[in-house]
Amino acid sequence: MRLYDSKTAPGPRRARMFLAEKGLGFETVEVDLGQGEQLGDAFRRINPRCTVPVLELDDGTCLTENAGIAAYLEAMAPEPPLLGRTPKEKGLVATWNARVEQEGFWPVSDALRNRAKGLVGRAITGPTGYEQIPALAERSRARVLEFFDMLDERLGTSEYVAGEAFSVADITALVTIDFAGWVKLAPADHHVNTKRWSDAVRRRPSASC
Amino acid sequence: MRLYDSKTAPGPRRARMFLAEKGLGFETVEVDLGQGEQLGDAFRRINPRCTVPVLELDDGTCLTENAGIAAYLEAMAPEPPLLGRTPKEKGLVATWNARVEQEGFWPVSDALRNRAKGLVGRAITGPTGYEQIPALAERSRARVLEFFDMLDERLGTSEYVAGEAFSVADITALVTIDFAGWVKLAPADHHVNTKRWSDAVRRRPSASC
Repeated sequence: MRLYDSKTAPGPRRARMFLAEKGLGFETVEVDLGQGEQLGDAFRRINPRCTVPVLELDDGTCLTENAGIAAYLEAMAPEPPLLGRTPKEKGLVATWNARVEQEGFWPVSDALRNRAKGLVGRAITGPTGYEQIPALAERSRARVLEFFDMLDERLGTSEYVAGEAFSVADITALVTIDFAGWVKLAPADHHVNTKRWSDAVRRRPSASC
Repeated sequence: MRLYDSKTAPGPRRARMFLAEKGLGFETVEVDLGQGEQLGDAFRRINPRCTVPVLELDDGTCLTENAGIAAYLEAMAPEPPLLGRTPKEKGLVATWNARVEQEGFWPVSDALRNRAKGLVGRAITGPTGYEQIPALAERSRARVLEFFDMLDERLGTSEYVAGEAFSVADITALVTIDFAGWVKLAPADHHVNTKRWSDAVRRRPSASC
């Protein structure tokens, strides 16, 4: 299998960390987002959505979303489980991963894409140019701060984001925190639970992906 | 298990349809969103996020996101599969479900919540009041129209949204189309593939949920 990747973008990092936790080997093809390679004809034949990551399977099937990449890899290589082991764990991992995405990852993305000078007319990933909305960037920054509070509260009662075991929700949360640095937002000094957790997660080899 | 529900809201309908397709019995508790019951102290003890649906398991665990509810139910009751049977199918179902959510469901929600008079100061679900951004409502309407084109193109080459079998992606897509009616948007007459598919999906008993 082959990962269409970008070493600098947060979305593909989620896929790389997932693959690293599974210990799976894969080929990578770097897509030059700075040069707009994702919008070119060659890459559109791989993913008309013009986004990375894309996991291309050996039969040519392309999975163009982190959710799909994770579901495929978990089924192909169940150990170690990253989507939960029991039905209840699976439910909690999917719940927390969705919360981190909706309350953290997407607000960071909106905060960046609706204000960065280099993304004028590119407020939403994909083939269509949408204009930036500065008020949305501001509202999203407030949501990111709320997310940091929520995450710290959760980590005050739970070893990892979704429970007692490391899971994809921890990958999404760590990537979200580092992505927030792009818009100069970070957990506060009083978020000591987040500090305890992120220190532990950053010691995993996958975190350097 | 018990579903905290709202008969009129699109999010809980996704959970009801999933449960109906699985043939599972469950108790429901109606939460009166019109009266703001989801923001009251009693419901906050069930879900501090103040959203429905919530699936409460027999041990008291609350799953507060459709993704978590689906993952739990699929593991507890694998037949009929709604998240795919093989690893590749699981990857494709999760990919398409994420696309329908991101390109369809959330843009419809943003189009509604950023303009409806009854939702002033409530642009985002949850405990915090965020102001509406009318420009976001407009941009989101354009994205919904693009979603209808994308969906119709997909259904021109695929029986169901994620492939040859009915899946959670069809539930999310049907609910999204009906939700779009709230902002007076609908697939166009030339979206004949969508018509073929939606006629078939609406014949399933779950569609009347």
